[in-house]
Amino acid sequence: MQKKAFQDYYPDYFSHCYGCGRLNDGGLKIKSYWDGEESVCIHEPRPEYMAIPGFVYGGLIASLIDCHGTGTASAAKYRADGREMDTDPPIRFLTASLHVDYLLPTPLGVPLEIRGRVKEIKGRKVIVESTLSAGGKICARGQVVAVQVPEHLIPGFSEAG
Amino acid sequence: MQKKAFQDYYPDYFSHCYGCGRLNDGGLKIKSYWDGEESVCIHEPRPEYMAIPGFVYGGLIASLIDCHGTGTASAAKYRADGREMDTDPPIRFLTASLHVDYLLPTPLGVPLEIRGRVKEIKGRKVIVESTLSAGGKICARGQVVAVQVPEHLIPGFSEAG
Repeated sequence: MQKKAFQDYYPDYFSHCYGCGRLNDGGLKIKSYWDGEESVCIHEPRPEYMAIPGFVYGGLIASLIDCHGTGTASAAKYRADGREMDTDPPIRFLTASLHVDYLLPTPLGVPLEIRGRVKEIKGRKVIVESTLSAGGKICARGQVVAVQVPEHLIPGFSEAG
Repeated sequence: MQKKAFQDYYPDYFSHCYGCGRLNDGGLKIKSYWDGEESVCIHEPRPEYMAIPGFVYGGLIASLIDCHGTGTASAAKYRADGREMDTDPPIRFLTASLHVDYLLPTPLGVPLEIRGRVKEIKGRKVIVESTLSAGGKICARGQVVAVQVPEHLIPGFSEAG
Protein backbone atom coordinates (compact mmCIF):
# COMPACT_ATOMS: atom_id res chain seq x y z
CA MET A 1 0.00 0.00 0.00
CA GLN A 2 1.13 3.53 -0.75
CA LYS A 3 1.23 6.15 1.97
CA LYS A 4 -1.24 8.69 0.57
CA ALA A 5 -4.92 7.64 0.53
CA PHE A 6 -7.27 8.26 -2.40
CA GLN A 7 -9.07 10.83 -0.28
CA ASP A 8 -5.87 12.78 0.38
CA TYR A 9 -5.88 13.76 -3.30
CA TYR A 10 -9.41 15.19 -3.31
CA PRO A 11 -9.52 18.94 -3.95
CA ASP A 12 -10.65 20.99 -0.93
CA TYR A 13 -14.12 21.47 -2.41
CA PHE A 14 -14.66 17.69 -2.27
CA SER A 15 -13.07 17.26 1.14
CA HIS A 16 -16.02 18.25 3.32
CA CYS A 17 -17.87 14.95 2.93
CA TYR A 18 -19.08 13.43 6.20
CA GLY A 19 -17.79 10.03 5.17
CA CYS A 20 -14.47 10.75 3.51
CA GLY A 21 -13.63 14.45 3.77
CA ARG A 22 -10.31 15.20 5.46
CA LEU A 23 -11.73 18.67 6.29
CA ASN A 24 -14.91 17.39 8.04
CA ASP A 25 -13.86 17.10 11.66
CA GLY A 26 -17.20 15.64 12.74
CA GLY A 27 -17.08 12.98 10.05
CA LEU A 28 -15.58 9.55 9.50
CA LYS A 29 -12.48 10.55 7.47
CA ILE A 30 -12.17 7.13 5.87
CA LYS A 31 -8.99 6.35 3.94
CA SER A 32 -8.81 4.02 0.95
CA TYR A 33 -5.75 2.53 -0.76
CA TRP A 34 -4.93 0.19 -3.60
CA ASP A 35 -3.95 -3.33 -2.66
CA GLY A 36 -3.25 -4.82 -6.07
CA GLU A 37 -6.47 -4.93 -8.06
CA GLU A 38 -8.55 -4.34 -4.94
CA SER A 39 -9.01 -1.21 -2.89
CA VAL A 40 -9.02 -1.46 0.86
CA CYS A 41 -10.20 0.71 3.74
CA ILE A 42 -9.84 -0.10 7.42
CA HIS A 43 -12.25 1.67 9.75
CA GLU A 44 -13.15 1.13 13.38
CA PRO A 45 -16.59 2.61 14.09
CA ARG A 46 -17.05 4.98 17.01
CA PRO A 47 -19.11 3.48 19.85
CA GLU A 48 -22.19 5.58 19.07
CA TYR A 49 -22.49 3.82 15.71
CA MET A 50 -24.51 1.04 17.24
CA ALA A 51 -27.54 -0.79 15.85
CA ILE A 52 -28.25 -2.95 18.90
CA PRO A 53 -25.77 -3.37 21.77
CA GLY A 54 -22.56 -4.92 20.43
CA PHE A 55 -23.31 -4.52 16.74
CA VAL A 56 -22.58 -1.90 14.10
CA TYR A 57 -25.27 0.41 12.71
CA GLY A 58 -26.35 -0.55 9.18
CA GLY A 59 -26.43 3.07 8.05
CA LEU A 60 -22.73 3.35 8.89
CA ILE A 61 -22.02 0.21 6.89
CA ALA A 62 -23.88 1.77 3.95
CA SER A 63 -21.83 4.97 4.40
CA LEU A 64 -18.52 3.09 4.39
CA ILE A 65 -19.46 1.15 1.27
CA ASP A 66 -20.64 4.37 -0.38
CA CYS A 67 -17.55 6.51 0.25
CA HIS A 68 -15.09 3.69 -0.32
CA GLY A 69 -16.94 2.99 -3.58
CA THR A 70 -16.78 6.54 -4.93
CA GLY A 71 -13.14 6.79 -3.85
CA THR A 72 -12.32 3.56 -5.64
CA ALA A 73 -14.20 4.75 -8.73
CA SER A 74 -12.08 7.89 -8.79
CA ALA A 75 -8.78 6.04 -8.33
CA ALA A 76 -9.77 3.49 -10.97
CA LYS A 77 -10.60 6.19 -13.49
CA TYR A 78 -7.23 7.89 -12.98
CA ARG A 79 -5.62 4.50 -13.55
CA ALA A 80 -7.69 3.76 -16.65
CA ASP A 81 -6.79 7.19 -18.08
CA GLY A 82 -3.10 6.65 -17.29
CA ARG A 83 -3.03 9.70 -15.02
CA GLU A 84 -1.52 10.38 -11.62
CA MET A 85 -4.01 11.31 -8.89
CA ASP A 86 -2.39 14.70 -8.29
CA THR A 87 -3.04 15.97 -11.83
CA ASP A 88 -5.77 18.36 -13.03
CA PRO A 89 -8.64 18.36 -13.73
CA PRO A 90 -9.61 16.38 -10.62
CA ILE A 91 -11.62 13.22 -11.22
CA ARG A 92 -14.44 12.89 -8.71
CA PHE A 93 -17.52 10.71 -8.57
CA LEU A 94 -20.96 11.01 -7.02
CA THR A 95 -23.20 8.10 -6.10
CA ALA A 96 -26.08 7.35 -8.46
CA SER A 97 -27.19 4.25 -6.58
CA LEU A 98 -26.17 2.24 -3.56
CA HIS A 99 -27.13 -1.31 -2.66
CA VAL A 100 -26.17 -3.18 0.52
CA ASP A 101 -26.95 -6.76 1.53
CA TYR A 102 -26.52 -7.33 5.28
CA LEU A 103 -25.38 -10.93 5.67
CA LEU A 104 -24.33 -11.15 9.31
CA PRO A 105 -24.52 -8.87 12.33
CA THR A 106 -21.29 -6.80 12.31
CA PRO A 107 -19.52 -6.71 15.67
CA LEU A 108 -18.76 -3.29 17.18
CA GLY A 109 -15.34 -2.67 18.75
CA VAL A 110 -13.12 -4.22 16.08
CA PRO A 111 -11.66 -2.77 12.89
CA LEU A 112 -13.76 -3.35 9.78
CA GLU A 113 -12.16 -4.06 6.43
CA ILE A 114 -13.91 -2.81 3.31
CA ARG A 115 -12.56 -4.24 0.06
CA GLY A 116 -13.62 -2.86 -3.30
CA ARG A 117 -13.27 -4.20 -6.80
CA VAL A 118 -14.15 -2.43 -10.03
CA LYS A 119 -16.87 -4.34 -11.84
CA GLU A 120 -17.24 -1.95 -14.77
CA ILE A 121 -15.77 1.27 -16.13
CA LYS A 122 -17.73 2.71 -19.02
CA GLY A 123 -17.42 6.37 -19.99
CA ARG A 124 -18.26 8.44 -16.94
CA LYS A 125 -19.81 5.52 -15.03
CA VAL A 126 -17.94 3.16 -12.71
CA ILE A 127 -19.50 0.27 -10.79
CA VAL A 128 -17.68 -0.84 -7.64
CA GLU A 129 -18.51 -3.96 -5.64
CA SER A 130 -17.38 -4.14 -2.03
CA THR A 131 -17.34 -6.51 0.89
CA LEU A 132 -17.25 -5.45 4.52
CA SER A 133 -15.57 -7.88 6.90
CA ALA A 134 -14.97 -8.14 10.63
CA GLY A 135 -12.41 -10.61 11.96
CA GLY A 136 -12.11 -12.20 8.53
CA LYS A 137 -15.84 -12.84 8.11
CA ILE A 138 -17.81 -11.06 5.40
CA CYS A 139 -20.72 -9.31 7.15
CA ALA A 140 -22.07 -7.22 4.25
CA ARG A 141 -21.78 -6.90 0.48
CA GLY A 142 -22.43 -3.70 -1.42
CA GLN A 143 -22.48 -2.12 -4.82
CA VAL A 144 -22.09 1.51 -5.80
CA VAL A 145 -22.93 2.93 -9.21
CA ALA A 146 -20.78 6.04 -9.38
CA VAL A 147 -20.99 8.82 -11.96
CA GLN A 148 -18.16 11.21 -12.72
CA VAL A 149 -18.73 14.87 -11.87
CA PRO A 150 -18.48 17.02 -15.03
CA GLU A 151 -15.39 19.29 -14.96
CA HIS A 152 -17.46 22.46 -15.42
CA LEU A 153 -19.25 21.71 -12.12
CA ILE A 154 -16.00 21.60 -10.17
CA PRO A 155 -15.42 25.05 -8.68
CA GLY A 156 -11.87 26.34 -8.97
CA PHE A 157 -10.32 23.00 -9.81
CA SER A 158 -7.26 24.70 -11.21
CA GLU A 159 -6.19 25.71 -7.68
CA ALA A 160 -6.54 22.11 -6.47
CA GLY A 161 -4.39 19.02 -6.77
CA MET B 1 -50.64 11.99 12.97
CA GLN B 2 -50.57 10.50 16.46
CA LYS B 3 -48.33 11.99 19.13
CA LYS B 4 -46.17 8.97 19.89
CA ALA B 5 -43.72 7.93 17.18
CA PHE B 6 -43.09 4.32 16.12
CA GLN B 7 -39.66 4.57 17.73
CA ASP B 8 -41.11 5.63 21.08
CA TYR B 9 -42.58 2.12 21.40
CA TYR B 10 -39.27 0.32 20.87
CA PRO B 11 -38.09 -1.61 23.94
CA ASP B 12 -34.96 -0.18 25.55
CA TYR B 13 -32.79 -2.92 24.03
CA PHE B 14 -33.71 -1.65 20.54
CA SER B 15 -33.44 2.02 21.44
CA HIS B 16 -29.67 2.43 21.14
CA CYS B 17 -29.64 2.58 17.36
CA TYR B 18 -27.65 5.47 15.91
CA GLY B 19 -30.43 6.26 13.47
CA CYS B 20 -33.58 5.84 15.52
CA GLY B 21 -32.74 5.06 19.13
CA ARG B 22 -34.21 7.47 21.65
CA LEU B 23 -31.40 6.44 24.04
CA ASN B 24 -28.53 7.20 21.61
CA ASP B 25 -27.65 10.80 22.39
CA GLY B 26 -25.04 11.00 19.63
CA GLY B 27 -27.47 9.68 17.03
CA LEU B 28 -30.19 10.99 14.77
CA LYS B 29 -33.24 10.05 16.87
CA ILE B 30 -35.57 9.99 13.88
CA LYS B 31 -39.32 9.81 14.52
CA SER B 32 -41.80 8.13 12.19
CA TYR B 33 -45.61 8.33 12.18
CA TRP B 34 -48.52 7.02 10.19
CA ASP B 35 -50.13 9.44 7.78
CA GLY B 36 -52.94 7.32 6.39
CA GLU B 37 -51.42 4.45 4.42
CA GLU B 38 -48.03 6.13 4.32
CA SER B 39 -45.49 6.60 7.06
CA VAL B 40 -43.72 9.91 7.37
CA CYS B 41 -40.56 11.17 9.04
CA ILE B 42 -39.32 14.75 9.04
CA HIS B 43 -35.63 15.24 9.71
CA GLU B 44 -33.32 18.20 9.31
CA PRO B 45 -29.72 17.00 8.98
CA ARG B 46 -27.03 18.49 11.18
CA PRO B 47 -24.56 20.70 9.25
CA GLU B 48 -21.73 18.15 9.43
CA TYR B 49 -23.82 15.76 7.31
CA MET B 50 -22.52 17.32 4.15
CA ALA B 51 -21.52 15.66 0.88
CA ILE B 52 -20.26 18.76 -0.89
CA PRO B 53 -20.94 22.30 0.37
CA GLY B 54 -24.70 22.89 0.46
CA PHE B 55 -25.78 19.29 -0.09
CA VAL B 56 -26.69 16.36 2.15
CA TYR B 57 -24.41 13.35 2.60
CA GLY B 58 -25.66 10.27 0.74
CA GLY B 59 -24.82 7.99 3.66
CA LEU B 60 -27.19 9.98 5.85
CA ILE B 61 -29.91 9.66 3.22
CA ALA B 62 -29.33 5.89 3.23
CA SER B 63 -29.52 5.89 7.04
CA LEU B 64 -32.83 7.79 7.08
CA ILE B 65 -34.36 5.45 4.51
CA ASP B 66 -33.03 2.45 6.45
CA CYS B 67 -34.36 3.39 9.91
CA HIS B 68 -37.63 4.81 8.63
CA GLY B 69 -38.04 1.58 6.66
CA THR B 70 -37.52 -0.78 9.59
CA GLY B 71 -39.74 1.41 11.77
CA THR B 72 -42.48 1.33 9.15
CA ALA B 73 -42.08 -2.44 8.80
CA SER B 74 -42.61 -2.82 12.53
CA ALA B 75 -45.66 -0.55 12.65
CA ALA B 76 -47.14 -2.27 9.59
CA LYS B 77 -46.72 -5.70 11.14
CA TYR B 78 -48.47 -4.61 14.36
CA ARG B 79 -51.29 -3.29 12.17
CA ALA B 80 -51.46 -6.45 10.08
CA ASP B 81 -51.58 -8.55 13.25
CA GLY B 82 -54.29 -6.32 14.73
CA ARG B 83 -52.09 -5.43 17.68
CA GLU B 84 -51.34 -2.20 19.48
CA MET B 85 -47.69 -1.10 19.43
CA ASP B 86 -47.40 -1.18 23.22
CA THR B 87 -48.16 -4.92 23.49
CA ASP B 88 -45.70 -7.78 24.05
CA PRO B 89 -43.82 -9.47 22.52
CA PRO B 90 -42.26 -6.48 20.77
CA ILE B 91 -42.17 -6.63 16.99
CA ARG B 92 -38.85 -5.39 15.67
CA PHE B 93 -37.18 -5.64 12.28
CA LEU B 94 -33.61 -5.71 11.05
CA THR B 95 -32.47 -4.73 7.58
CA ALA B 96 -31.66 -7.55 5.19
CA SER B 97 -31.02 -5.27 2.24
CA LEU B 98 -31.08 -1.58 1.44
CA HIS B 99 -31.21 0.09 -1.95
CA VAL B 100 -31.06 3.83 -2.63
CA ASP B 101 -31.29 5.70 -5.94
CA TYR B 102 -29.98 9.25 -5.69
CA LEU B 103 -32.04 11.28 -8.16
CA LEU B 104 -31.14 14.89 -7.33
CA PRO B 105 -28.64 16.61 -5.03
CA THR B 106 -30.42 17.04 -1.67
CA PRO B 107 -30.10 20.57 -0.25
CA LEU B 108 -28.69 20.95 3.27
CA GLY B 109 -30.36 23.33 5.72
CA VAL B 110 -34.00 22.42 5.11
CA PRO B 111 -36.19 19.70 6.64
CA LEU B 112 -36.30 16.47 4.67
CA GLU B 113 -39.48 14.43 4.37
CA ILE B 114 -39.17 10.67 4.14
CA ARG B 115 -42.37 8.89 3.12
CA GLY B 116 -42.68 5.12 3.32
CA ARG B 117 -45.19 2.73 1.85
CA VAL B 118 -45.44 -1.00 2.48
CA LYS B 119 -44.88 -2.89 -0.76
CA GLU B 120 -45.17 -6.37 0.69
CA ILE B 121 -45.80 -8.16 4.01
CA LYS B 122 -45.14 -11.88 3.85
CA GLY B 123 -44.51 -13.87 7.01
CA ARG B 124 -41.56 -12.31 8.80
CA LYS B 125 -40.49 -10.20 5.80
CA VAL B 126 -41.69 -6.69 5.03
CA ILE B 127 -40.60 -4.60 2.05
CA VAL B 128 -40.89 -0.83 2.43
CA GLU B 129 -40.42 1.68 -0.38
CA SER B 130 -39.58 5.27 0.54
CA THR B 131 -39.06 8.63 -1.06
CA LEU B 132 -36.94 11.40 0.40
CA SER B 133 -37.97 14.93 -0.53
CA ALA B 134 -36.71 18.44 0.07
CA GLY B 135 -38.96 21.42 -0.59
CA GLY B 136 -41.50 19.14 -2.28
CA LYS B 137 -39.01 17.62 -4.74
CA ILE B 138 -38.14 13.93 -4.56
CA CYS B 139 -34.35 13.72 -4.26
CA ALA B 140 -33.95 9.99 -3.53
CA ARG B 141 -35.90 6.77 -3.64
CA GLY B 142 -35.15 3.76 -1.49
CA GLN B 143 -36.20 0.26 -0.65
CA VAL B 144 -35.64 -1.72 2.53
CA VAL B 145 -36.15 -5.46 2.85
CA ALA B 146 -36.75 -5.92 6.57
CA VAL B 147 -36.84 -9.18 8.48
CA GLN B 148 -38.55 -9.63 11.83
CA VAL B 149 -36.29 -10.40 14.80
CA PRO B 150 -37.24 -13.78 16.32
CA GLU B 151 -38.77 -13.39 19.79
CA HIS B 152 -36.18 -15.68 21.43
CA LEU B 153 -33.45 -13.24 20.35
CA ILE B 154 -35.07 -10.30 22.12
CA PRO B 155 -33.51 -10.02 25.60
CA GLY B 156 -35.95 -9.37 28.42
CA PHE B 157 -38.83 -8.38 26.18
CA SER B 158 -41.28 -8.98 28.98
CA GLU B 159 -39.96 -5.92 30.83
CA ALA B 160 -40.45 -3.74 27.79
CA GLY B 161 -43.44 -2.03 26.22
